[in-house]
Amino acid sequence: LRKSSPTVTELVQGILNGDTAALGRGITLVESTNSSHLENANTIIESCLPKSKNSIRIGITGVPGVGKSTFIEAFGKLLTDKGKKVAVLAVDPSSTISKGSILGDKTRMQELIRNPKAFIRPSPSGKSLGGVARKTRESIILCEAAGYDVILIETVGVGQSETAVHSMVDFFLLLKLAGAGDELQGIKRGVIEMADIIVINKADGENIKQAKIAKTEFERALHLYPPKENGWIPKVLTCSALNATGTDEIWEIIDTYIAENKKNDYFTIKRNQQNMYWLEQTLDDRLKNQFYQSKKVRSLLDTMTQNVLEHKVSPFRAAEELLKSYWNANQ
Amino acid sequence: LRKSSPTVTELVQGILNGDTAALGRGITLVESTNSSHLENANTIIESCLPKSKNSIRIGITGVPGVGKSTFIEAFGKLLTDKGKKVAVLAVDPSSTISKGSILGDKTRMQELIRNPKAFIRPSPSGKSLGGVARKTRESIILCEAAGYDVILIETVGVGQSETAVHSMVDFFLLLKLAGAGDELQGIKRGVIEMADIIVINKADGENIKQAKIAKTEFERALHLYPPKENGWIPKVLTCSALNATGTDEIWEIIDTYIAENKKNDYFTIKRNQQNMYWLEQTLDDRLKNQFYQSKKVRSLLDTMTQNVLEHKVSPFRAAEELLKSYWNANQ
Repeated sequence: LRKSSPTVTELVQGILNGDTAALGRGITLVESTNSSHLENANTIIESCLPKSKNSIRIGITGVPGVGKSTFIEAFGKLLTDKGKKVAVLAVDPSSTISKGSILGDKTRMQELIRNPKAFIRPSPSGKSLGGVARKTRESIILCEAAGYDVILIETVGVGQSETAVHSMVDFFLLLKLAGAGDELQGIKRGVIEMADIIVINKADGENIKQAKIAKTEFERALHLYPPKENGWIPKVLTCSALNATGTDEIWEIIDTYIAENKKNDYFTIKRNQQNMYWLEQTLDDRLKNQFYQSKKVRSLLDTMTQNVLEHKVSPFRAAEELLKSYWNANQ
Repeated sequence: LRKSSPTVTELVQGILNGDTAALGRGITLVESTNSSHLENANTIIESCLPKSKNSIRIGITGVPGVGKSTFIEAFGKLLTDKGKKVAVLAVDPSSTISKGSILGDKTRMQELIRNPKAFIRPSPSGKSLGGVARKTRESIILCEAAGYDVILIETVGVGQSETAVHSMVDFFLLLKLAGAGDELQGIKRGVIEMADIIVINKADGENIKQAKIAKTEFERALHLYPPKENGWIPKVLTCSALNATGTDEIWEIIDTYIAENKKNDYFTIKRNQQNMYWLEQTLDDRLKNQFYQSKKVRSLLDTMTQNVLEHKVSPFRAAEELLKSYWNANQ
């Protein structure tokens, strides 16, 4: 029994057979920063790609304390009870497993972690959002090839990572608490506009009344905002992740949303748009990185920035100067 | 009397003296796509830059039909009556003077156009938003050097141009009409989150009641959204540009906002951020342009795009392939 070094072909076969050990190893290769793993990682991804089209990808965000882990635990159970295989991934550039990211802290998902129909993987480590997002996005492919029906992708709703997650999912869920005032400070402007559904969590006990008021307020507010590209007007629901109430209605909405979007082709259109987004985004990042890391640019950038801030040159002129010296150096 | 070809020094002197003919000529040079004008344009801009710090820059957006021209006419009159010099510029990549952009259609601003304290300039022509935005942004510098106290920058609220305008102003005003339903379709998602003030226009005659309801609704909605970086919670007002009612209150809010932001330094911080934004944005655009125009990239891009859409390679792998061939060709 050769456990230590399966071949790439064996790994791919394992993933396609739904073997979680193979899936875990595959994701480890995809996440590796060791350049000798890159070739194998690419082979695995490209073997999985044609098999990975039928899942539902759901992004879940909300500020710390809103109850994301408890929600995923309850929602995950609901889905596995319905016979679905559920994978939980995360995008959290600041976290490392050792520092205890939300998903790393497995005590919070005690049930789901033991559920044979569920696969939980903490956020890949890394400081650059681009790198972390890329790894998560490629891990989705592997999970889909392994037969997971629903992929939940969690992110902390306080940085740039929601945009990344929004660009890799079919449906985006924002968790909130009633009593907007205190909690608003944490959430980034723009996140509300990304949501396909807003869920007011902790609607239990004495909070129920407040949660219902918050629901009405958000419904009213969302009505003043333009509908989404596909005509969807975001829904607002209350739920208690703790008591597992309200999760069924949430799944029904998502299920209907996906069915409708598959019927009118928006599902495929959006996935194609997302693929183009990641292609362009990667090109963009790499072109910029190469520019900002060039010796010529690094030696000039501070002076040019200073000149702009001191109103000596316009930002456009400063850009031209930097580009001229970059391109001259590269010829 | 040498009217046809003033030297650059004379032009700069004219602009600094507040001579509108010199200002007009200066802007024409800045807008020129003739590369032989570039040097002179840059000299003019850099001579004006140190003199251009004391204006208030206000962005004004709203879908067609919301009454932008009428609003600017009324608001401009109010400001000039208060002794302020007002310049009106525009960012509208789709318009050309001949096709009759909103500002090109001067019949809509009959009074303001004849007002000696006002300077009106239609949107520079051009198809690329980046080019049009750059020209407008550099024209602001010239207007400020010419002593204009308030610069109004108009844009049609249906495309990408609001983001560009938002990134060149101190205060962003969104014009809307009561009866959200019909009019919402036109406005882009995200524009509402940019607004520092929402003005419900056409609050006159039978519309007054509706406008007041809309005001309350928006106030309630905005309260659910996170405050801006400087703690500002966007205001909602009604106005009738036609009857010139409500404009005074709008100006008071802007005036107070600017005074507060100058006191707490946010005014300068934001302008510096905007300068950095335009530096980075310009670098970004030019790096991308060079990439996408390269022969190697153009010959590969279609195939790579197709491979991604057909799930043969991941977008990240496709990006690497394109970059490899681009960088090899340039070495």
